[in-house]
Amino acid sequence: MPAPGENLKINGERLWDSLMQMAKIGPGIAGGNNRQTLTDEDAEGRRLFQKWCEDAGLTMGVDSMGTMFMTRPGTEPDLPAVYVGSHLDTQPTGGKYDGVLGVLAGLEIVRTLNDLGIKTKHPIVVTNWTNEEGTRYAPAMLASGVFAGVHEEDWANAREDAKGLKFGDELERIGWKGDEPVGSRKDKMKAFFELHIEQGPILEAEGKDIGVVTHGQGLSWTQVTVTGKESHTGSTPMPMRKNAGLGMARILELVDEIAWAHKPDAVGAAGHIDIYPNSRNVIPGKAVFTVDFRSPDLATIKAMEQQLDAGAKKICNDMGLGLEMETVGGFDPVTFDETCVTAIRNAAERLGYSHRDIISGAGHDACWINRVAPTAMVMCPCVDGLSHNEAEEISLDWARAGADVLFHAVVETAEIVE
Amino acid sequence: MPAPGENLKINGERLWDSLMQMAKIGPGIAGGNNRQTLTDEDAEGRRLFQKWCEDAGLTMGVDSMGTMFMTRPGTEPDLPAVYVGSHLDTQPTGGKYDGVLGVLAGLEIVRTLNDLGIKTKHPIVVTNWTNEEGTRYAPAMLASGVFAGVHEEDWANAREDAKGLKFGDELERIGWKGDEPVGSRKDKMKAFFELHIEQGPILEAEGKDIGVVTHGQGLSWTQVTVTGKESHTGSTPMPMRKNAGLGMARILELVDEIAWAHKPDAVGAAGHIDIYPNSRNVIPGKAVFTVDFRSPDLATIKAMEQQLDAGAKKICNDMGLGLEMETVGGFDPVTFDETCVTAIRNAAERLGYSHRDIISGAGHDACWINRVAPTAMVMCPCVDGLSHNEAEEISLDWARAGADVLFHAVVETAEIVE
Repeated sequence: MPAPGENLKINGERLWDSLMQMAKIGPGIAGGNNRQTLTDEDAEGRRLFQKWCEDAGLTMGVDSMGTMFMTRPGTEPDLPAVYVGSHLDTQPTGGKYDGVLGVLAGLEIVRTLNDLGIKTKHPIVVTNWTNEEGTRYAPAMLASGVFAGVHEEDWANAREDAKGLKFGDELERIGWKGDEPVGSRKDKMKAFFELHIEQGPILEAEGKDIGVVTHGQGLSWTQVTVTGKESHTGSTPMPMRKNAGLGMARILELVDEIAWAHKPDAVGAAGHIDIYPNSRNVIPGKAVFTVDFRSPDLATIKAMEQQLDAGAKKICNDMGLGLEMETVGGFDPVTFDETCVTAIRNAAERLGYSHRDIISGAGHDACWINRVAPTAMVMCPCVDGLSHNEAEEISLDWARAGADVLFHAVVETAEIVE
Repeated sequence: MPAPGENLKINGERLWDSLMQMAKIGPGIAGGNNRQTLTDEDAEGRRLFQKWCEDAGLTMGVDSMGTMFMTRPGTEPDLPAVYVGSHLDTQPTGGKYDGVLGVLAGLEIVRTLNDLGIKTKHPIVVTNWTNEEGTRYAPAMLASGVFAGVHEEDWANAREDAKGLKFGDELERIGWKGDEPVGSRKDKMKAFFELHIEQGPILEAEGKDIGVVTHGQGLSWTQVTVTGKESHTGSTPMPMRKNAGLGMARILELVDEIAWAHKPDAVGAAGHIDIYPNSRNVIPGKAVFTVDFRSPDLATIKAMEQQLDAGAKKICNDMGLGLEMETVGGFDPVTFDETCVTAIRNAAERLGYSHRDIISGAGHDACWINRVAPTAMVMCPCVDGLSHNEAEEISLDWARAGADVLFHAVVETAEIVE
């Protein structure tokens, strides 16, 4: 199939204008957005996106998890469609680009194709996956997970937010429960492409326009509970202490050593740490913390888990501390489709954008969809690696480059009608 | 002055019975007590103690901080009095003995003297210091601190509890604001003796009946704030991390090393640790924790503070982390009066109780009163070193031994009339 010419580009200003329009819905308190899933703001954002899509000639389908599929027909309607998109929902103190860029770049591709009168053989479906963020309704990537068969739909509908409101009820309340059975499209997908901001510092630090995402890191969350003995910080001699906080400190150092031992791609840290009773004059009797290990390689994750298990046991044995470890989360590494990845890399090369292969450290809808369709991701830099924060920022040029590469990968896969 | 005979002993069963009676006031939820300062329960406990004292022929004085002075006259009324006591207030989830033992052992001394028809030349004053615990109204040892000139009375009266109620108002409300100027007695004190449970594990572990308290440990509290950079645990490569939690872990290890380097008496730990934002998938951007160093030697405390300062700076510099350190509490080491300490050691020896010199790791009213009068403390073991806990426990035999030693030290100092 012929590749698009290097002069074929999207309209960066129009894409940016749409991003700014969407950001007016569910404004945050510090310049970002609060458009959490299944809120009135989410519904308003969906309606704006629907209007834009219908203005561009797309036809809407909505499945029973609320995911929006906006279709531009191909010239050969029986061919499987090329999907492109991400999510419009945000964190409670989220930015204007996380997810939104990927959805609106899909729309911009269609607008550009319309402008240029280009037809494709395969349909193109711009997609807005419901509840990627998972803040209001855990877990993240909920609708794409049901779509890919990772979760049961009944289980998803019964998920409750902090007020006890059920996912299924709130989806009906905002009027976005569709009638398409979830996952009914999955056997008619030629590919899925997702553009997303990096949410990390690598591309900006290296001055690269484009990250060609080859893998999604696998994740292992181990909740560690170290048990010592609460006692007075003044009246307990050093040799008689069982300091759970000190045991934790040694395990945190171990976690760091383990991650470095599996460089360059593995990472490890504990972001969640609770100390009990957390009083200035009481030696900690208990420390509970979660070790987060990630690697694009499953064997590496397993090795890191084993090293943590053995090392933490030794530390606690030596200190007379109790130890419990529980797996509280995880997913396997993702290897994206080689053909899709190559399409993205070639597009960046053809368009003259600087690029590097990159591993996605965060979870994305693409990680689940990769299970049911050939999938890959494009990343663009974000300022200072900042995301999940109202101060999240990107430049118009970064958005343009990402959307251009996405455009080329999508239309090459959807096959331009000459 | 003649020492009491070794067969002169208090009535352990009566002391124990009084402890159990007092424990009925302000019962906790797990077998201990919640008789926090200036509550209705505190007032009820004070009334019961007042009644017992008046039944034993004592005369009450109350100062304007609510401290109760119950006087048994001496045969030579112009001589300075020997004070004995501790505090009746408890922690919110406190035990039956912390403080209470020292007050009721003072009462038991008077009851025994009455039983045996023994008179002393110096008056004996059984004392209940207001608000030793400091949980409802910080700081601890508030009334004894004002008495000793450490704090201003106006400042103490303006202290607020979590509901915004002022110390002075609550003292009036429960009807225990007395008319004696605080500290007016301090020039007429021959000595102050305080019996207290150890609140540590040493005496029980070594099988000793009595701790002869020679020093009170000095305290240094440094609040440390380590500043890194919040970033995603998945998408931030190891070399680009500024992990404030890992910096904290290394400083906790340093604190432990410093304390061991000043063995056997110095101790160090952090009981208070807060991590921000404390989310499983965010590398800690900030860690705030309080380092608690104690030693009976001021120069050692200063040396430990300097080693922390230098070591923490090096750790944070090497890791590219920010560091702030602030002194948030402290008091100088206390050296108790040699004559009083000797009286206690001799009493234990004379009575045949096993004993050892010990350093008080916790603060006590005696630590402030030592500034204005010759002072010393007797300690008895407590089960498993447990205190500030409803499960705090001692045996009748331990209480008896402690009160016997207190008795001998007090009556020797108050001088028996032959």
